[in-house]
Amino acid sequence: MSDTPNTTGPLTDGEATSLLFASNKVDGTKVKSRDGDTLGSVYSLMINKRSGNTTYAVLSLGGFLGMGKSYYPLPFQLLTYDHVADGYIVTIDRRLLEGGPSWASNSPEFNQAYADRVSNYYGVTPVDLTLS
Amino acid sequence: MSDTPNTTGPLTDGEATSLLFASNKVDGTKVKSRDGDTLGSVYSLMINKRSGNTTYAVLSLGGFLGMGKSYYPLPFQLLTYDHVADGYIVTIDRRLLEGGPSWASNSPEFNQAYADRVSNYYGVTPVDLTLS
Repeated sequence: MSDTPNTTGPLTDGEATSLLFASNKVDGTKVKSRDGDTLGSVYSLMINKRSGNTTYAVLSLGGFLGMGKSYYPLPFQLLTYDHVADGYIVTIDRRLLEGGPSWASNSPEFNQAYADRVSNYYGVTPVDLTLS
Repeated sequence: MSDTPNTTGPLTDGEATSLLFASNKVDGTKVKSRDGDTLGSVYSLMINKRSGNTTYAVLSLGGFLGMGKSYYPLPFQLLTYDHVADGYIVTIDRRLLEGGPSWASNSPEFNQAYADRVSNYYGVTPVDLTLS
């Protein structure tokens, strides 16, 4: 994530631009704790194909030189966008997050059962993924 | 976009899985016209960082062997998800789309002015991108 505006076109409306990001540029958006500590970054967003709404964010936390990173899915409503830092703040306690569902190498199938597990762990209303 | 389910984890809930896609896997999702003709694919989604809602889809249309592709931003509400094809159907006339805002090589700054231009062309309510 760069703070420099895209300069391929005229920047007629400054700040306003940065409220949208492209799905292929999400990776790397910074994530901080409520205390302002850097936690990691957004790896991807899980988007409902029908509504276009983001239901989960997958955070990439920890790791050093690409080793030992873990991925933590989090209900999107537990993230607050901080437009000054152009990143997200996790509104729950860091230890709650660290004890939550995660994976290191083999990503799980993000199906109804897994989504329910994530929602239940964080005490948010489960998302209905039924195709009908 | 593959029709084969991800097999890195147990597939306990079959179909339901496919209602979510990860932001880094959006590229390539098929797009058809109302008549069922293949138009192209989704290049990216423009997501509101704060709400997590998709406001525009950028379609990649035309082209041959990577040459001559053009990019067409479209208000997301003009796309309907087709879960059988696992792709999108553009609900407006193809000629309206082809006459719409687009670019070939230099992507414009997707700021308030550009977003308004897209919304106005398609006659949908403009999206307020003000950071406040």
